[in-house]
Parts: sequence; C-alpha cells; structure tokens
Amino acid sequence: MTATAVQAPLDLPGLRRQIDGCLDHYLTVKAYAVHTENLPPLPLEVLRAFVFAGGKRIRPLMCVLGWHAARGQEEAGPVIRAAASLELFHAFALIHDDIMDHSDTRRGHPTVHRTLAERRQRRVHPEEFGEHAAILLGDMALACSQEMLNGAGLSPARLTVALPTLDAMRTAVLYGQYMDLDTTEQLTGDVARALAVIRYKTAKYTIEHPLHLGAALAGGGPAVRAALSAYALPLGEAFQLRDDLLGVFGDPQVTGKPVLDDLREGKRTVLLALALRRADPGQVRTLCRLIGDPALDEEQADQVRAVLAATGARAQVESLIDDQQRAALRALEGAPFPATAVRALHEVARALTERAR
Amino acid sequence: MTATAVQAPLDLPGLRRQIDGCLDHYLTVKAYAVHTENLPPLPLEVLRAFVFAGGKRIRPLMCVLGWHAARGQEEAGPVIRAAASLELFHAFALIHDDIMDHSDTRRGHPTVHRTLAERRQRRVHPEEFGEHAAILLGDMALACSQEMLNGAGLSPARLTVALPTLDAMRTAVLYGQYMDLDTTEQLTGDVARALAVIRYKTAKYTIEHPLHLGAALAGGGPAVRAALSAYALPLGEAFQLRDDLLGVFGDPQVTGKPVLDDLREGKRTVLLALALRRADPGQVRTLCRLIGDPALDEEQADQVRAVLAATGARAQVESLIDDQQRAALRALEGAPFPATAVRALHEVARALTERAR
Repeated sequence: MTATAVQAPLDLPGLRRQIDGCLDHYLTVKAYAVHTENLPPLPLEVLRAFVFAGGKRIRPLMCVLGWHAARGQEEAGPVIRAAASLELFHAFALIHDDIMDHSDTRRGHPTVHRTLAERRQRRVHPEEFGEHAAILLGDMALACSQEMLNGAGLSPARLTVALPTLDAMRTAVLYGQYMDLDTTEQLTGDVARALAVIRYKTAKYTIEHPLHLGAALAGGGPAVRAALSAYALPLGEAFQLRDDLLGVFGDPQVTGKPVLDDLREGKRTVLLALALRRADPGQVRTLCRLIGDPALDEEQADQVRAVLAATGARAQVESLIDDQQRAALRALEGAPFPATAVRALHEVARALTERAR
Repeated sequence: MTATAVQAPLDLPGLRRQIDGCLDHYLTVKAYAVHTENLPPLPLEVLRAFVFAGGKRIRPLMCVLGWHAARGQEEAGPVIRAAASLELFHAFALIHDDIMDHSDTRRGHPTVHRTLAERRQRRVHPEEFGEHAAILLGDMALACSQEMLNGAGLSPARLTVALPTLDAMRTAVLYGQYMDLDTTEQLTGDVARALAVIRYKTAKYTIEHPLHLGAALAGGGPAVRAALSAYALPLGEAFQLRDDLLGVFGDPQVTGKPVLDDLREGKRTVLLALALRRADPGQVRTLCRLIGDPALDEEQADQVRAVLAATGARAQVESLIDDQQRAALRALEGAPFPATAVRALHEVARALTERAR
C-alpha cells in the first residue's frame, strides 16, 4: 500500500480482512490484559462474538477509502488500525440501540442484552441484568474503540488532526439516535424530520465522518473534504432508505434480522412518513393500528406492506434511492481523488444501495 | 499559576471555581453549536443541570494536584480544562449507574432518567423513555468529555502522553461497575471481592488515574507516578469506605441521597461483607431478609444498622478508614512532590475521609 501500489485497483475484500485482523489482534491483546488483572472475561468474550458475528465494516472501509481519496502516502498500517477502531465504536452504538429497541436478534444471533441475560439465567431478574450489563458492555466497546485508536501507531500530530472529526461523528450519531427515540411515539407524515434523523444517524455518521477521518489522516484539505461530503451525504441517505425498505420487505434469512422488528418497534422511517402523507383515511387507520404493535404477526405485516405499496410510498423510496445514488456517483466525476479511489468509492456506493442485506 | 506562584498554598476552592468555569464555558459553546444545527436542546440542558446540581469535582481536582505534584511548569489553563473534562466523564458514569441502580435521587434532585421521564409525561411509557434517553444522555456526556479534552488546548505531544492513563481509567471504572453489577445478587462475606470492586471502581478511577493524568500532563516520570499511587490507592479505599458508611448511617439532608437507597438496592459493600462474616445465625437471617428489599422502611433499616453495629462491622470499617487514611498521608512524607502539592494532597485526603457527605 505504498504510493505506487495505489495505482492498482483497491482490493476491498482484502481490506476487510485486514480490518478484521486488526480487530482480532486488539481484542486478543485486551483479553490478555484483562485476564492478567484478574478481571472477569465475559464482557470481552461477548463483545468479540458480537463483532465477529457479522457486519459489513462499512465505516472502517470508508475511512480507508477517504485516506486513499486524499492521496494518503505514508504507511497504511496505522490508518487501517485507526479505521478498524470505528467498528468498535459502531458495536457500542448497536449494543445500546438494541437495548432501546428491545431487539432480540442482530446479525442472526441473540443481541448482547439477550446473550447476557441468558448467560446469567440463575438470576432473579435475568432480563434486567442483561440490559444493565449491556449498557456497560456498550460503554466498554466505546472505551475499547478509543484505546484501539490511541494505540494505532499514528503520530501525535496526525492523531490530533483527526480528533475534531471524531467529535463531530459522536455528536451526529448520538443526536440522531436521540431524535429517533424522541419521535418514536408520534406517527406523522413529517418526511423532513425523518430525513433529518437519517442525515445525522446514518449519512454523517456512517459515510461522511469516516471518509473525513481518513482524509484527515492523509492530511487532506477543505477541497477533498467538500468533495467527500458531496458523495457521502446522498449515498448515506440512499443507504438508510435501502435499510428501511429491507427492514419491511427484506428476506430475514438474508438480512439476519427478523423482518417484523422495524414494524413492531414502530420505527419512524421516511417510507412510513411518505405512506402516511399519501394514505386515504382507511389506510391511515390500518397504519396507526398496526405500526408499533409489539405482537404484530405476519398477516398484519402484509396488510402494512400492502398499504406501503398501494400508497406509492415504496416506489417513491426506490426512486429516492436511485436519485441519491446517482447524485453520489455524479459527485465522484469531478472529485480531486485518484482514479483507484474513485473506482472503489463507485463500487461501494452501488453495493450499499443495491444490496439485499 | 506560574512556577513561582506554586510556592503559595494552593487555593482549592478557587481551583474548584476555575473548573466550574471551564465546564460552564464548554457546555455553553456546545449548546450554541447544537442550537445552530437545529438539534434538540433538551439533552444538553439536562446534562448541564445535572453537572451543576452538585458534585465535589474530586477527579478534576486530583488531576490538577497531580500536575502540581509533578511540578507542572507550563500555563495551567489547558491542564485545568483537561481536568474539568473528567467531570463530564463522571457525569456519564453516574447517569448510567443511576439507571442500573434504579435511583430516583442524586445530589438532592431527581436522577437524569427520572428527569427525562418527567419531561415526557404524555408518553405511553414515560419511565422506559426516561431510561432509554438517559442511556443516550450518558453516552453524550462521555462524548462531551472527549470533545472538551480534545479542545483543551494541550499540545499534540502532551495530549498523546496522557491517553494511556485515560484508557486505563475507562477500563478500571467500567470493569469495577461490571463486577459490582455481577455480584449484586450474591450476599456473601467475601471481603476480598468487595475490596477488589472498590479498588477499580473508586481507588483507581477516582484518585489514582486522575492524579496520573495530571502528572502525565506535567511530564512526570515513573517515580512521581509510583509516589502518587502509594497515596492514591489507600486514600481511594478510605474514601469509598466512608461513602459506604454514609450510604447507611449518613444524614440524607447532608448527603443529598436517600439513606435507604444503598440498602434497598442491596449494594454489596465491604461493610456488609464484614458484618456477614461476623454475624450469628439470627443476624445473618436479618440481613438476608432485609438487604435488597426495594420496599425497606426506616424501621427495618434500623434493624440492619443495629446488626452492622452489633457485629462490629461498622467500627471495623471506621478503623480501616483510619488505617488507610494514615497510609495515604504517610505516603506523602517521602514523596518527591513540592511542599505546596503535599499540603494540598494532605488537606484533600482528610476532607475525603472525614466528610459527612
């Protein structure tokens, strides 16, 4: 991964393997340190299992691609380690999110709070123990993310330049989550608000900030950042809109997530807001009666799906995804990135918006 | 606070005011940024109210004293800002802790999850909303702590030197909390385990790591660190033992915390472990029946207090506090610190172990 190697196409699966290798190494060393201090092994065991149960490593990949886009020249090792630390941050966000959403399954396995509850079945209140221990386990994942970044081998100057981006990333995702939580009770056709939540929770957090982080590590300036944002924000929106469609219409065998979860939880998606805005009174009643019902069954879900289709909301979301994907790809055309980075960013944009899981 | 001013006695109340000034400034600037981005103001309002409802600022003070102990020479401003960021980290730890402990009151006010539940009374499940929003608010406090540290004005080299201490601090407190949570169901006379929890949750987190952080910011070497540890670990133990006594025998008007909380929650203290080890069968039955009963009343609490006194556990904890306080003060005698730092550390050690709140 020297300056000359950058000319060859970027090997994305290979990069993903390198990222996983870094995570494996960090978690192994940490587990050993914890063992040496006689601290309980369970939290890190559960964290490791969670991290390696799946995940697309989108944020680490974006970080490394941002570094390439900004023509990163130095040794890539510390950058890949720093990028991989974002996956532990993401584990933190997901673990806390799953508590708030009462999700039982993630990546085809029990969620962390369910796992911890099961590992402590003799307790009087196993579920409460599971949730409380999962709060701490999420906190630990965040602390590990920090520690992994700090130990990535970046020079002090390089690390310091990256910090404001990380601060912005944390603010974005936490406020996005908060806005999401704060609206969960209101069933409205407020598309603008649903889009604002997406912007913070996903477009900035998942795509823009990781790209900016990588660019900062390469010493990229404002022009590179702006070009990355022009790609990142529409792509992030399209990515989340695809996620919302998969959450209702996806194949749970492929997504690893029960397809009724989003509907039972009453997730306030753009898809739902669009449907409410176009629904007739009977359709509104159907949505209000069924969305957020924790006992929703497959047949009722089909009624919801029928309304989402009949109102044209589903088709409109598909068309929004197309528009935003195109906007992201167009942004790459005039971007001041090397050709290899453009090609890789193009590939990733298609994968994230045309995926089935 | 230049090198010459270090000769004058350290003004601890003045230092506390400076720390509060830094917190006020950071939170004001952050609230403005959040407002500018059209993000909801409630989380930061609640965080600010929580931070300024009380608190002794022990960790920031310890950090500044560690800096003095290691003969910090440069401008103190960035050090005080970095120190103050520990208070936001502590807010994070307390907010999550109060969720896990089901505490309704802290510092004489409703806890954050209670406050958030009350601010959203129209909701179907206000209590659940309160707990979930408080998970996020704790996360935000942690992110703010990080952002405040990053923006403290430390040079990259100085900041980088401090990072391993912060990593160790986060590991210590989170594992301490986890061990605490993991034992809450077992009522045992395992004094060693209760002491291990104290060591991580309090002695390291509250005293040792903040002192080490300050020393690192002053460029202090291994001898200073070792001398600080020799003071910190016994003092931290004595501090927590005092806290445990106040949690059962304290005056709630003074502590700001309902005196029955620790008993209702069934907190596994050294005090309790000592009592169980010395109790006769009747006393064991009393403790097992009452400790952890969420409906425990004042009369029943008096029965517990009587057992804690009659077994000699209360007196033994007082004597442990004395021993550990003496050990901490003795450690100052040969320590390679300037006289002003020794005097201030002496004063703080007495205040933390002889306090009524």
